Amino acid sequence: METIKYKPIGIIRSPFKELEGMPIQPVGACGVKGEIIIEDEYTEGLTDLEEFSHLILIYHFHLCNGCSMMVKPFMDDKKHGIFATRAPKRPNPIGLSVIGLDKIEGNIIHISNVDIADGTPLLDIKPYIPQLEKGADEEVCIGWFEDHHHKASDMRSDDRFIN
Amino acid sequence: METIKYKPIGIIRSPFKELEGMPIQPVGACGVKGEIIIEDEYTEGLTDLEEFSHLILIYHFHLCNGCSMMVKPFMDDKKHGIFATRAPKRPNPIGLSVIGLDKIEGNIIHISNVDIADGTPLLDIKPYIPQLEKGADEEVCIGWFEDHHHKASDMRSDDRFIN
Repeated sequence: METIKYKPIGIIRSPFKELEGMPIQPVGACGVKGEIIIEDEYTEGLTDLEEFSHLILIYHFHLCNGCSMMVKPFMDDKKHGIFATRAPKRPNPIGLSVIGLDKIEGNIIHISNVDIADGTPLLDIKPYIPQLEKGADEEVCIGWFEDHHHKASDMRSDDRFIN
Repeated sequence: METIKYKPIGIIRSPFKELEGMPIQPVGACGVKGEIIIEDEYTEGLTDLEEFSHLILIYHFHLCNGCSMMVKPFMDDKKHGIFATRAPKRPNPIGLSVIGLDKIEGNIIHISNVDIADGTPLLDIKPYIPQLEKGADEEVCIGWFEDHHHKASDMRSDDRFIN
């Protein structure tokens, strides 16, 4: 299939200069502040974004290379298929985080609950609208995470996905 | 900034052969069935995925070219910044849908609530785990969508984002 090419729309700044010791999800990054620096040509596209409390960031795991089909994620001791995890060494190393939006000043977006490494290239921003995700009456099953997701608040990354 | 290259992991099959008249979000695609055909080399990565009821699909809007910084989205008559909307003509035309997982047979994933055009290249699959998205006690503000998101169930796309 054809290769798809994207150009980053900006860069994410955070306190996490290296992959080890990071929060592994936004719920574990409570209060961690960061910034997004948007390329000038895209600043107008931020119009009305400040009305939202949370944003979905889609970004490139620039510090990860290669992938495995079976991985032992941070939150479990058993191996799972890569697509049944949020592990970063994916066939396409695309990251997804719901973060808090504090304030926008020109091309700078101030953000909270940042679980993202400093210098990460940002691909897209979407408003976080839980009402669009699924019908309100649909039950959600979360597989192997059921017994483990509570760890996401406190657990920190180790070196398992570092090149 | 450096160009980022991705290779699709599979292709999405749906009843929507053209962009006009489609549901605009998964909540408007209740019961619409589709399939994902995963490339053979990634099939092992689906291990344990069937335990989840919902998946996050990250895909490429292959039928959209170009972008505007200000757009009039399907659900409103006013223009908004592209990043404050889910409109497909984005700087990086990346789509995101939470869909229902029915069944996995080998490299075929049977899915429900499909608001995606037939033939769409798939970039990534992540398990949908609402508990990881934000703290349970955080309030969510959804900006201009507040008065419009209820339309997502019934509204269909028109030709405004077609090339």
